[in-house]
Amino acid sequence: MSVSKNDIKFVQSLRLKKFRQKYNNFIAEGEKIAGEALLSSRCKVVRVFALPEWLHENAAQLSPIQASAITEAGENDLAKLSGLSTPNKVLMVLEVPQAGELPLIHTALYLDDVQDPGNLGAILRIADWFAVPQVFCSPGSVDVYNPKVVQASMGAFLRVDSQEIELETLLRRQPELPVLGAVLDGENLFTTPLPSSGLLIVGNESKGIRPATQQLLSHRIAIPKAPGGGAESLNAAVATGIITACWINRV
Amino acid sequence: MSVSKNDIKFVQSLRLKKFRQKYNNFIAEGEKIAGEALLSSRCKVVRVFALPEWLHENAAQLSPIQASAITEAGENDLAKLSGLSTPNKVLMVLEVPQAGELPLIHTALYLDDVQDPGNLGAILRIADWFAVPQVFCSPGSVDVYNPKVVQASMGAFLRVDSQEIELETLLRRQPELPVLGAVLDGENLFTTPLPSSGLLIVGNESKGIRPATQQLLSHRIAIPKAPGGGAESLNAAVATGIITACWINRV
Repeated sequence: MSVSKNDIKFVQSLRLKKFRQKYNNFIAEGEKIAGEALLSSRCKVVRVFALPEWLHENAAQLSPIQASAITEAGENDLAKLSGLSTPNKVLMVLEVPQAGELPLIHTALYLDDVQDPGNLGAILRIADWFAVPQVFCSPGSVDVYNPKVVQASMGAFLRVDSQEIELETLLRRQPELPVLGAVLDGENLFTTPLPSSGLLIVGNESKGIRPATQQLLSHRIAIPKAPGGGAESLNAAVATGIITACWINRV
Repeated sequence: MSVSKNDIKFVQSLRLKKFRQKYNNFIAEGEKIAGEALLSSRCKVVRVFALPEWLHENAAQLSPIQASAITEAGENDLAKLSGLSTPNKVLMVLEVPQAGELPLIHTALYLDDVQDPGNLGAILRIADWFAVPQVFCSPGSVDVYNPKVVQASMGAFLRVDSQEIELETLLRRQPELPVLGAVLDGENLFTTPLPSSGLLIVGNESKGIRPATQQLLSHRIAIPKAPGGGAESLNAAVATGIITACWINRV
């Protein structure tokens, strides 16, 4: 089967959240992510578009996939399908996993209007590395299945549970859950006692944690700026990495 | 003075390293960065292109700048001048600062072929926050004056000293300088003793620290992955943030 105009139209439409929601599908590109997706049970593989050589090399892993879902593509086809400036040898359409029953939270991250896809991707990798099982997102955050998030996550979306949900919904269910967040006048992350479980709030890139959300914090922390340090803030993913690393390695 | 075709050609040319080197100039955009650049003595302001309202609001800070360097621009002009998808109210052309005499290193970062402009920008913010005064870059790293680096650094390029230099040149001058780097089989960052001064090597996004560079490490460290953690790696800027935060706060 070769790539049709409808295929291109369909895949390109998935760059928009509206169509990802309509079809419940999203795009994942590249050999590493595709290889992991084939091994994962988390996201059903809906379509595979790939160079003949890639299909040949990965025939064994592709055997459970219906033949009609696999399409041989040329480099020109992949360039049209892909939203990346450097298209890959393989592009997959995956099914957005069903949100299961809301889990009881032990440690999790909550993204309070994080906007940058690269940041969300890097944050999913942080959760994956430190075995934080869930990343929740406010309705105003960038969509986890945005193609740039998927790429930046390097496959972490296959292992970290993520869903869009209001913070209040989580806290109504677990009112005693510690809520941690970095604020300007917070306690020194390196010296203040941290709870052994909880929800770490990650604020928006330019505005930080929203005032309404700040009122819900039980642990106001700060990454101490060194004497003589000049920056107004750290990148959101960098700050999340520092806090998560210290938290998980101290408790 | 209004924006000429030559202005547009000149500013657009600065998106390329070749022309940044030829003219010794680079682009910085946005109100925050422009405001900081006007207050900083580090980079001479060569040209200012801005909306009339911005010029009016910032007349006092602009007074030391030659009138011939200031150009009123419309939104359409700024869209042509800017490489960003959302142009700002102001775009400046700044002079690349002269590399001063090579400083003696106390704590510094060395980027070993870091490629992503967003990562380099985030790393400059890390250095700025933790008062690490220098960020050195290998000749294979992305250029510090790439417009995307400048934007992602949020002005940190005005406070952190950065220059392109071979690692060997630094180590020939300070052969006893501790050299730290994250490698897969390194010692746990949170428990291993760290030197009070040194050079932290940041590896390439996909390949990590080059084998030749690894041989120069005196302290092989690792950010411990949590039991059950799945990611193969962390984002380069996130890893740099975690290591720098722990290092600076422990010594």
